[in-house]
Amino acid sequence: MKIFRFPFSIAYSDTDAGGIVYHGRYIEIAERARMEMMRGIELPVDDIGFVVRELSIKYMHPLRLAADIIVETEMVKVGAASMDLQQKFVHDDTICAIMNITVAYIGADMRAKRIPNAVLSHLDSTKEG
Amino acid sequence: MKIFRFPFSIAYSDTDAGGIVYHGRYIEIAERARMEMMRGIELPVDDIGFVVRELSIKYMHPLRLAADIIVETEMVKVGAASMDLQQKFVHDDTICAIMNITVAYIGADMRAKRIPNAVLSHLDSTKEG
Amino acid sequence: MKIFRFPFSIAYSDTDAGGIVYHGRYIEIAERARMEMMRGIELPVDDIGFVVRELSIKYMHPLRLAADIIVETEMVKVGAASMDLQQKFVHDDTICAIMNITVAYIGADMRAKRIPNAVLSHLDSTKEG
Amino acid sequence: MKIFRFPFSIAYSDTDAGGIVYHGRYIEIAERARMEMMRGIELPVDDIGFVVRELSIKYMHPLRLAADIIVETEMVKVGAASMDLQQKFVHDDTICAIMNITVAYIGADMRAKRIPNAVLSHLDSTKEG
Repeated sequence: MKIFRFPFSIAYSDTDAGGIVYHGRYIEIAERARMEMMRGIELPVDDIGFVVRELSIKYMHPLRLAADIIVETEMVKVGAASMDLQQKFVHDDTICAIMNITVAYIGADMRAKRIPNAVLSHLDSTKEG
Repeated sequence: MKIFRFPFSIAYSDTDAGGIVYHGRYIEIAERARMEMMRGIELPVDDIGFVVRELSIKYMHPLRLAADIIVETEMVKVGAASMDLQQKFVHDDTICAIMNITVAYIGADMRAKRIPNAVLSHLDSTKEG
Repeated sequence: MKIFRFPFSIAYSDTDAGGIVYHGRYIEIAERARMEMMRGIELPVDDIGFVVRELSIKYMHPLRLAADIIVETEMVKVGAASMDLQQKFVHDDTICAIMNITVAYIGADMRAKRIPNAVLSHLDSTKEG
Repeated sequence: MKIFRFPFSIAYSDTDAGGIVYHGRYIEIAERARMEMMRGIELPVDDIGFVVRELSIKYMHPLRLAADIIVETEMVKVGAASMDLQQKFVHDDTICAIMNITVAYIGADMRAKRIPNAVLSHLDSTKEG
């Protein structure tokens, strides 16, 4: 699978009084990276789309205000109706945090549904940014 | 009009790397205060409800991690389909910020609509907390 | 260990366009619960305090606007310089999400440090809310 | 004065259960735009920098998930120790919200201080994006 690279700059709203990026903010930044990765995919219009089932994140090095980071997203496993992705927060060639996330695809009837081929073919062809 | 008092404690997620509450967070805290003020009011189920039209906020004294504050909300003007509220962020008897906000009431047809009497009578009778 | 119960009401700022609580928001709500649990503990004033090392969360049932929930926090393991907590998001007696989190205690020198006894004795005596 | 244009894409974390961008989120997006506008300016290292004194925002048209917007930032008045900026949220050539904000420059002694020339000359030369 290809790696999708998403650049992001740390603003005040991302930080907390400890002087570093708030631990909950990584989740939001990761979502922006996945959104950009999915850009241009046309999904069946009535489907709910992807929802997050579970995630885990390990914080290795703190990130600070004005840091320019890259979020590297990689698909690690594709199931019938869900997929696992790994997202790395990289700053100055150092991996500062690693997140693993499972998202499920939900159809118009609110039930899990096979991931559309448009998604899989798009992600296979995602160019390194 | 009565004043509604909402207690709130500042957490890490509310602060930024300047060591104080992030200026955008006041808007969220103010919304929590208005939500509690409106608790128990039964609105016509198909109506959209209140939406924010405009707001202004003046920051006078910074708020820090673990501060226990009170948000004081007061209705200052009621129009046909909108109302103006003033919300003060008070810490240790000092007003740290003042926000003025105009919210409009929107009906099921997405248009401005007369504010239901249930809202007005509830707010008139809101006890000081 | 005792369970600490923290009540919380879901506001618009907690939700997303899917109509449910945004998956990243659980992390912030959990932090508020831990902050209240720690209230009153006097830590050595120069210490950095607790930082989050890693966390995992599983989403079982969505939470919606205006839901009144309880976050149940329980210490599940205490190490020399870190501890593991489990936090459950409960609505109408249903567990909607479970989070496991490891926090480390950091001293004034930015290094891991034995958790002060004041913390452990406080958490042992935490009353059910 | 030049106009600085900042592109931004609306993610789930920016929206609320009303299906539109949460009114408090505009403040965060505006901060990202100002941060990019200030990129590359070297400020005296001990100075606190800019802090927000007051802001007002008017919401004209809602923004939705996946919208690609442009934040246009323009300096409208420069005082000795503060400046006023106007920030417009533009989508499909429509101004959806307008924010006016006053920021003050704070020195190492925590007091208002004359805005460094490096800031003013940088903003004068800011190219249209």
